[in-house]
Amino acid sequence: MDEEYKALTSTLHAFYTFDRWSYQQVYKPKSIKYKSLSTEEQEILDFYPQLLSDLEQCLGINDSFTKQLALVAAEDWGVPTSPDEWAKGTQQEYDKVRSTLLQLSREWSSDGVAEREATYGRIVEAVEKRLKNGRVLVPGCGLGRLVYEFVRKGYWTQGNEVSYHMLLASGYVLNRMPMAHSHTVFPYIFKSSHVSRRLLQVRPVTVPDESPMGIFEGREDAGELMSMAAGSFVDLYGPRGLAVSDAYTEDAAASEFRGENAGAFDVVATCFFLDTAHNVLDYIKTIHHCLREGGIWVNLGPLLWHYEGDSNTIEVKRDGETVNSIMEGLELTRDELVAVIEKLGFEFEERESGIKTTYSSDPKALGNFVYDTEFWVAKKVSGKDDKKPSDQALG
Amino acid sequence: MDEEYKALTSTLHAFYTFDRWSYQQVYKPKSIKYKSLSTEEQEILDFYPQLLSDLEQCLGINDSFTKQLALVAAEDWGVPTSPDEWAKGTQQEYDKVRSTLLQLSREWSSDGVAEREATYGRIVEAVEKRLKNGRVLVPGCGLGRLVYEFVRKGYWTQGNEVSYHMLLASGYVLNRMPMAHSHTVFPYIFKSSHVSRRLLQVRPVTVPDESPMGIFEGREDAGELMSMAAGSFVDLYGPRGLAVSDAYTEDAAASEFRGENAGAFDVVATCFFLDTAHNVLDYIKTIHHCLREGGIWVNLGPLLWHYEGDSNTIEVKRDGETVNSIMEGLELTRDELVAVIEKLGFEFEERESGIKTTYSSDPKALGNFVYDTEFWVAKKVSGKDDKKPSDQALG
Repeated sequence: MDEEYKALTSTLHAFYTFDRWSYQQVYKPKSIKYKSLSTEEQEILDFYPQLLSDLEQCLGINDSFTKQLALVAAEDWGVPTSPDEWAKGTQQEYDKVRSTLLQLSREWSSDGVAEREATYGRIVEAVEKRLKNGRVLVPGCGLGRLVYEFVRKGYWTQGNEVSYHMLLASGYVLNRMPMAHSHTVFPYIFKSSHVSRRLLQVRPVTVPDESPMGIFEGREDAGELMSMAAGSFVDLYGPRGLAVSDAYTEDAAASEFRGENAGAFDVVATCFFLDTAHNVLDYIKTIHHCLREGGIWVNLGPLLWHYEGDSNTIEVKRDGETVNSIMEGLELTRDELVAVIEKLGFEFEERESGIKTTYSSDPKALGNFVYDTEFWVAKKVSGKDDKKPSDQALG
Repeated sequence: MDEEYKALTSTLHAFYTFDRWSYQQVYKPKSIKYKSLSTEEQEILDFYPQLLSDLEQCLGINDSFTKQLALVAAEDWGVPTSPDEWAKGTQQEYDKVRSTLLQLSREWSSDGVAEREATYGRIVEAVEKRLKNGRVLVPGCGLGRLVYEFVRKGYWTQGNEVSYHMLLASGYVLNRMPMAHSHTVFPYIFKSSHVSRRLLQVRPVTVPDESPMGIFEGREDAGELMSMAAGSFVDLYGPRGLAVSDAYTEDAAASEFRGENAGAFDVVATCFFLDTAHNVLDYIKTIHHCLREGGIWVNLGPLLWHYEGDSNTIEVKRDGETVNSIMEGLELTRDELVAVIEKLGFEFEERESGIKTTYSSDPKALGNFVYDTEFWVAKKVSGKDDKKPSDQALG
């Protein structure tokens, strides 16, 4: 079985059979625990049978949604729509479906308004202040809401995403939801801590809060304004000479795409993205490479380095030789990052620290991780990498 | 090897050899990563050699502290002081040493002032408003700061703690630190995310911010006011008839201690403790049981149910029979918990939700989990358990 086919269909499978995993995660432990209690304890917890029944209903409605998504996405991606022909989903992939539902709430429901205003709102505003139109790239675009917000303002916008979970779900939202509030999901049933009232845990979220297809109405060019590129950011947009690893390949199609994208964007907008790198230098160089001279990089996000604690070893090219490296280990501080960005050919036009926001959180939970995020607008100037001969022939 | 001896000495061993683990966690990945970078990348990250050298120094100072703690604690606990005679520490135990250093910062350094004021401050104030003296129990007392705060105000106070990591470290702080700021630790070097300046990650914390031994000076009774009981809360203070599991035993010494503690306290103060239960009914019944009629329970904490996600099965007694249960599954909401507390024989005198605080966090980090904690003062009235014949012969 081809690797790409396997990765795609095992994701489809995880969506399709998500109810089984959900049942194990949510319903079963509560059921076992309740049954093991004494008669006296069960009397005290007289609300438990109702809770179990409510959870069962929520799981059923989630199941309709994730199953439908899997079948529609299979059709859209041109693979068999029979689940029997798909690879099996792993535990990790189920957990990603769970977080995809939370991401749906963040990006496409009214519950996510506060998070979106603090993040997307500030990014779009910063771009509007500087450019009335132009080409925008959104790496790590998740479920596409920030792409949509730019397109709505008339910018030619390309989203880039590497996760199949996000790609399948964003395709479903962007292309297959002509009506607002057409779908119901229960994204909060997976967490029983930090809940004030049970009703909040089993409350529905309807998506989308507005239909992305609305922007195409009455605008003939709108369809041309939006595009999505599936794949690794550094692989699709990076310069030559990055440390070649699984994230950056010698693949011919990617190489051609890279060539077309050299200096091709007026804006790169990164939101909760930069710290997903295991080598952030690669990200910064890639952003620099695909921006035109004078183009701007708008960033908002935390420094939650995703690979911190990941001690898996990888092979990378170092000055032409293959050497062993490790996923973690390059977790820069804010001040170091800022210095490195300047060294790599950017000038900060604006910079602010400590913008508080949550991410994919239940806004009604009694506890959440609060990020003091960094915001900046940086302009591309001549970078160190431009001076090296090997980069003269970019792309 | 006796189980208790093994548990105690493997904890000692984890403290004693913590430097090895720390080196693997903190220094090594950064070193591997840096060495794998290209010459150009190393030039850009010109601060990395200094960082590695700083981390090495911090690890060395932490090592002096944890080694000394282990040797002194071995002496205090009456076990051989030669590490060769100890059981080996596990990965999990090393991680607990790491969090013990953070806990030290929370409870016994000036970095923890804000967290302590929001939590211990409010608890002590609520007790002082109601009782000028009396017997206070602090279950899950960690490193003993709340116990100390009560003793300082003249209350006879007993701390209870089950974790050897906490017991060893609290003994060291309470009995072996005659001077303020006598020890230096680096609790923040283990986390490289959410750091604004590198200097903050490698900054020292001095402990204790004040010497607990100061309260004994000029007060002859002070030594009698403070006591510590090592063991499970429900095992040491609970009524008969709890679902017997590993946390509640038929042990003779525990049974005698339970008898002495029935109705023995004027105050039970729980801080970030209640949600450590896998059966919170047991905790509530135990609090009720060891309070005198009219005694008060003061609580401040979140609903971060510690066993959520722990699907390990356990055996419990259910109406006299042994049945299979599970650690997770009984994660109550705030409103459910409040209703259950009333059913089990408490009247709320005061109740407030949404008191924001962090826990064992670096106050200078660019991101922290923020809890909307619950606070209450509840008075013991006749409870359901008092009516059952089996509980007439409590203890």
